[in-house]
Amino acid sequence: MPHINLPKEFPGIRSLFMFRPETAAPLNHLVQTLLHDPHPTLSAGERELIASYVSSLNECKYCATIHGAIAKHQLGNNVDIVAQVINDPCTASISNKLKALLKIAAKVQAGGKQVGEEDITNAREEGATDIEIHDTVLIAAAFCMYNRYVDGLATWQPDDDELYDKMGEQRAREGYLTPPFKIV
Amino acid sequence: MPHINLPKEFPGIRSLFMFRPETAAPLNHLVQTLLHDPHPTLSAGERELIASYVSSLNECKYCATIHGAIAKHQLGNNVDIVAQVINDPCTASISNKLKALLKIAAKVQAGGKQVGEEDITNAREEGATDIEIHDTVLIAAAFCMYNRYVDGLATWQPDDDELYDKMGEQRAREGYLTPPFKIV
Repeated sequence: MPHINLPKEFPGIRSLFMFRPETAAPLNHLVQTLLHDPHPTLSAGERELIASYVSSLNECKYCATIHGAIAKHQLGNNVDIVAQVINDPCTASISNKLKALLKIAAKVQAGGKQVGEEDITNAREEGATDIEIHDTVLIAAAFCMYNRYVDGLATWQPDDDELYDKMGEQRAREGYLTPPFKIV
Repeated sequence: MPHINLPKEFPGIRSLFMFRPETAAPLNHLVQTLLHDPHPTLSAGERELIASYVSSLNECKYCATIHGAIAKHQLGNNVDIVAQVINDPCTASISNKLKALLKIAAKVQAGGKQVGEEDITNAREEGATDIEIHDTVLIAAAFCMYNRYVDGLATWQPDDDELYDKMGEQRAREGYLTPPFKIV
């Protein structure tokens, strides 16, 4: 049961957005910019993979599952890639550059000071740009916020995989600025 | 030295805001809403104390110092309260309600799932409302993002206390939406 009195028709962060629209506006604007808006070089699917991976490291079921579902839809319905990244980015069928960026993301999840010069050098050797390194650090940092927000208030996080898939399909198509559908 | 090529005239998060204005907009909007805009019951100074305390737990020098300086200016130039809270909220000269909220903030810093029903009950017994509990969790979560962002990219964090005091006075007066002054 949530720690505060939240609307019951919406799961996870969506119930918090309904409770406090004043903070929902910048939180939605941030995730739209980081994950959905056009990017010079990283696809929306790659950015969603970073979000899902960091959420999985933080053991936030809602965020890991919904961003995994969005990534799947962004990546041509490829559910295997998502599972591989969550399991171990080093052995996943992704580019070496994305592996290096996910390594940076994992360091950020453990703490900002954990990112070392060698992690940055490694990413640059795989072709990563300043914007890609910046955005990876900020996506990872942002999900250390979203995950704590969702779990720290004990929001309702459904167990129904089909539901996450349906919500993920909507977000992959529409982005983050349209209203959610009620699910109960 | 920063991990990416940042403008040298601005410290900490301000250099990142100059580097990437697209993400600066929602990040500034969020902190303005959480810490500076009018609040039903928590003063701006109390909210800045939560931000500084969480940043101190994350050992982020830039954020802990600047938000400590802003809190000082919001709280009638009271530098003792800031030092007391950073040292140990339990023994600080603050209300029992704020102590209970800072305890929740520390749990969020450690991880969203660390917040227990007993922490919420304790805060309610000291008079905390749903909005206060929500905003405390989100402020703490947000600073787990801002701190990782500032440290994860190894931004320049000056050692000059007078400079933080001057920047803090500006933010306490103007909020977060006006441009920073160049310091070099």
